[in-house]
Amino acid sequence: MTEQVKRNIDIDEVRAAALRIAPYVHETPVLSSSTVDAQAGCRLLFKCENLQTAGAFKARGAHNAMLILPREVRERGVATHSSGNHAAALSLAAKRMGVTAHVVMPENAPASKVEAVRAYGGEITFCAPTQKAREETLQAVCARTGATFIPPFENRDVIAGQATCALEMVSQLPQAPDILITPVGGGGLLSGTALVSRSLWPETRIVGAEPAGADDAQRSFRSGVRQLQTAPDTIADGLRSSLGELNFSMIRDSVDDILTASDAGIVRAMRLVLTRMKLLIEASAAVPLAAILEHPDYFAGRTVAVVISGGNVDIDQLPW
Amino acid sequence: MTEQVKRNIDIDEVRAAALRIAPYVHETPVLSSSTVDAQAGCRLLFKCENLQTAGAFKARGAHNAMLILPREVRERGVATHSSGNHAAALSLAAKRMGVTAHVVMPENAPASKVEAVRAYGGEITFCAPTQKAREETLQAVCARTGATFIPPFENRDVIAGQATCALEMVSQLPQAPDILITPVGGGGLLSGTALVSRSLWPETRIVGAEPAGADDAQRSFRSGVRQLQTAPDTIADGLRSSLGELNFSMIRDSVDDILTASDAGIVRAMRLVLTRMKLLIEASAAVPLAAILEHPDYFAGRTVAVVISGGNVDIDQLPW
Repeated sequence: MTEQVKRNIDIDEVRAAALRIAPYVHETPVLSSSTVDAQAGCRLLFKCENLQTAGAFKARGAHNAMLILPREVRERGVATHSSGNHAAALSLAAKRMGVTAHVVMPENAPASKVEAVRAYGGEITFCAPTQKAREETLQAVCARTGATFIPPFENRDVIAGQATCALEMVSQLPQAPDILITPVGGGGLLSGTALVSRSLWPETRIVGAEPAGADDAQRSFRSGVRQLQTAPDTIADGLRSSLGELNFSMIRDSVDDILTASDAGIVRAMRLVLTRMKLLIEASAAVPLAAILEHPDYFAGRTVAVVISGGNVDIDQLPW
Repeated sequence: MTEQVKRNIDIDEVRAAALRIAPYVHETPVLSSSTVDAQAGCRLLFKCENLQTAGAFKARGAHNAMLILPREVRERGVATHSSGNHAAALSLAAKRMGVTAHVVMPENAPASKVEAVRAYGGEITFCAPTQKAREETLQAVCARTGATFIPPFENRDVIAGQATCALEMVSQLPQAPDILITPVGGGGLLSGTALVSRSLWPETRIVGAEPAGADDAQRSFRSGVRQLQTAPDTIADGLRSSLGELNFSMIRDSVDDILTASDAGIVRAMRLVLTRMKLLIEASAAVPLAAILEHPDYFAGRTVAVVISGGNVDIDQLPW
């Protein structure tokens, strides 16, 4: 176990992160819809990180991790392997700070993801579509350029950055919700959220939501031992990875439950939010609402804060 | 000219309207996107009335007009002829106040519009798709039920209600924008916005935006005489009507300019806002951004407040 895992992240680190990243990120709105509430049978307060810069909460962690680097380290650039929102967020953060983000992507990454990283100025190195090739290529890129690896979720500065979303919600909501629910993939958002909520909303139940086809977080949580995600099968492409070790330890300590949702339910939730709330949300971001709609008794009559994690969808490939 | 036209609406009526409707409407967020700004060459601040209850600014005027009715009048119900957002907004307002909204709609109204009115509990009476049939059917419905006609735009209480959107923006923005732009169809939103802006942001240029295929407002504004819209040809279905008489008199007195946008530009603007800002906006709501993108010199380097008027789109019939 690394030193990172041993020393707990505390709420003061999250407060410091919020001040650090404030010039770079939006305070996203909390929105609600009486029509969606009526369908769900509870009061839903949606924290809209799909409206965040670069279209996802990932901007928070990427900016925080980069700003924390000593200047001379930051100037050698940053690197990551990701085909998703973290890569785009890191590319944007790097561009704003005048340095290079190196992004290792599998050759089969969707064109829209490649485009998003390029649009934010990221330098892409393609590799074979295996975990081994990704890691080796990343190592080679870092060795060649001197860039610092900023991982997508298993990193305390990234987690503290993602946690600022919950801190912002605390300042926006008049009172603590009964339940707070976020998607869980690698666990960066859920672990950061749990940290803030445990400290500032001690009575609130903290729930993670993941696709039934990538349920490693639920299996890990229930067994108490981290389980890897070997063959994810879900439309929610942001939630296919295994839980990070640091993330799991935080989730095990602070989260109350992990629920799953079906892919059909995820697509229905995306459509519902687009139709009724006029918000484009990606499949991964629809998982909490899908879980709520598939577990009505669990949420009945409660006030539920829901993190909408991102909105990066190819609008010519909507899944219906 | 009616008594309504003679007595000017003043800012105090708008303040009173804002207090009156506050329990029923959302304070919608003002959002921005550095990517869209870069494309437009100016700083854009989008007031997101697509996130308003019932999906459009129309909820403001409908609630205000209904709340102002004496209770015994309101209890006999309200009525309108409209196939669009005003009908849905009036139906919702009536349902919340426990009374009936009668909506006269042409037989050829799109299924999605009929559904929206029904979902909010409006009672629909179909008629032949002519202006004459609409008006006669409406008269018959009002005579039969005792309902009060709440027109979509030519009514001072409706205008004062729509004007609360601009009043809210004044409280949300740190300073007056250089330019304030809204769509213009019947002129309810633009006339109310102009009234507020003239009073509270005296240096701000007030611009209306309409489709090139329904340019009666521009022709009226330039000639100084109200011109009717005889054969509108545009995708922006909310902006096909002629300017109201009261609305035109207010626009002539207070608005600085009317610009037009092409239908192709309107569709591009819808796509841009959905892709980059994750917001679903209807064609009519995309007209100001389309006008900005088609008149870059007019807006270059300015701070521009843009009212996104609504988001009611059939997501299975997106125009691309």
